[in-house]
Amino acid sequence: MKLIRFGETGKEKPGIVASNGKWLDCSGFGEDWSEEFLENNGLERLQSWLESNIHNLQEISDKTRFGSPIKRPSKIICVGLNYSLHAKESGMPVPEVPILFMKATSSLCGPFDPILIPRNSTKTDWEVELAVVIGKKATYVSKEDAMDYVAGYVLHNDVSERDFQLHHGGQWVKGKSADHFAPLGPYLVTKDEISDPHNLRLWLKVNGETMQDSNTSDLVFDIPTLVSYISQYMTLLPGDVISTGTPSGVGLGLKPPRYLNAGDVVELGIDGLGTARQVAEQA
Amino acid sequence: MKLIRFGETGKEKPGIVASNGKWLDCSGFGEDWSEEFLENNGLERLQSWLESNIHNLQEISDKTRFGSPIKRPSKIICVGLNYSLHAKESGMPVPEVPILFMKATSSLCGPFDPILIPRNSTKTDWEVELAVVIGKKATYVSKEDAMDYVAGYVLHNDVSERDFQLHHGGQWVKGKSADHFAPLGPYLVTKDEISDPHNLRLWLKVNGETMQDSNTSDLVFDIPTLVSYISQYMTLLPGDVISTGTPSGVGLGLKPPRYLNAGDVVELGIDGLGTARQVAEQA
Repeated sequence: MKLIRFGETGKEKPGIVASNGKWLDCSGFGEDWSEEFLENNGLERLQSWLESNIHNLQEISDKTRFGSPIKRPSKIICVGLNYSLHAKESGMPVPEVPILFMKATSSLCGPFDPILIPRNSTKTDWEVELAVVIGKKATYVSKEDAMDYVAGYVLHNDVSERDFQLHHGGQWVKGKSADHFAPLGPYLVTKDEISDPHNLRLWLKVNGETMQDSNTSDLVFDIPTLVSYISQYMTLLPGDVISTGTPSGVGLGLKPPRYLNAGDVVELGIDGLGTARQVAEQA
Repeated sequence: MKLIRFGETGKEKPGIVASNGKWLDCSGFGEDWSEEFLENNGLERLQSWLESNIHNLQEISDKTRFGSPIKRPSKIICVGLNYSLHAKESGMPVPEVPILFMKATSSLCGPFDPILIPRNSTKTDWEVELAVVIGKKATYVSKEDAMDYVAGYVLHNDVSERDFQLHHGGQWVKGKSADHFAPLGPYLVTKDEISDPHNLRLWLKVNGETMQDSNTSDLVFDIPTLVSYISQYMTLLPGDVISTGTPSGVGLGLKPPRYLNAGDVVELGIDGLGTARQVAEQA
């Protein structure tokens, strides 16, 4: 299944993309795509509800706003420097263990919402990433069992302010958490639809020019390793997002570096997970 | 007002501590002490509801479990090295700007719940802290206006695993986010009840021995500075917790360092914010 959420910010309704490509309103199911939904076996219940109801669902107008395909999760945990070439362009060694940091969940927005350049920012940067959505509570999970805890995958732009992240004292969270720094979507694709999440092309363009073009086969730490590793340090809850890191080609890594200005158009995509488009705007 | 939550983990009910010291069940108010409650002027509505209803409220048995006095917030943002002597004992300089890091909200627990020593931990440490609870959405707030965004204060033990935090690669979040690493409470004290939050004694004992004993007058960055500063980097939502940092006397700073073992009893308190007690247990 491909799950979407649509409508005004904060008042999104749930929907799906049908196998014929139509975007359909699932408000009638009576639940949002949230932690509670996933926790209570929502994906299976939705699947069986769709069997009886799919032919009666209303098509969503293509003029609609789309939100994050999942309701605000308990956390967004990101993995740093998880592609070797990106570690190199950042001037840092390839990590021996996953580097983890968090993004405030208040940064979440829809896949076509603007990227808001924070006040006092001069270095707002892009990062296309494969994000994993957790399906059930995970604590001290083994690598062998880790995929049982994954609900699906979603396209994420881990927008980053490099000065805030690296030169404002301390920890990366400062440069990762501004409003609209986590455009997620267009859809959450359930695990069964992606035969190999470690062989997906991912790319990002700025104003039509390709900046990032890589494959998840280049991940330093793969998805089972990440889920298992993170679950040794904290409990992952249904709906939690793990953003698996970005490949090379971010603005910071260019010579000279290049950052987003108001009006710049960012387009990104991952095989099977759709595409997104965000225009930069001053906050 | 002093707000509490009581009952089984995940099924807590709301209550208050009355001016006569009695702990009373407020389930009849029909709302939990959550982001939505604070966002929709809950504190004022509760105050006026109490005027008519306080004499009919049931007393809570002292055998009850108490939970975090606020429902899981969108984020717990912590301030590092915000007391000079603690920076010194940690072998780090006093910061020139607030150092920020996040704690997974899944680490939240009640004030008398056990501290769970994570698997593979040898350095689980204590940190008594004054935590601030946000009352309304704060983005780009000035220092002058910052206190308008504060709902109240709460006692917090920012439990930390020093190896995970400092020697497992990368960012501090790894050592701050295990289950039960954020015992909060006993109560959320509304702002009006604390005449000067920058003159409160805070202390922590392990097995009856005083380890931390300081005063919030020693904060490097005060509360208005922190609220304003953080709101430049991310939006603070109602219910969000800012933990303002710990004074000297943590286990890491002792010579030789000393950490928690199963069975150790941690007691802590802050003037006006009550006391808490946690027994360490192996996870």
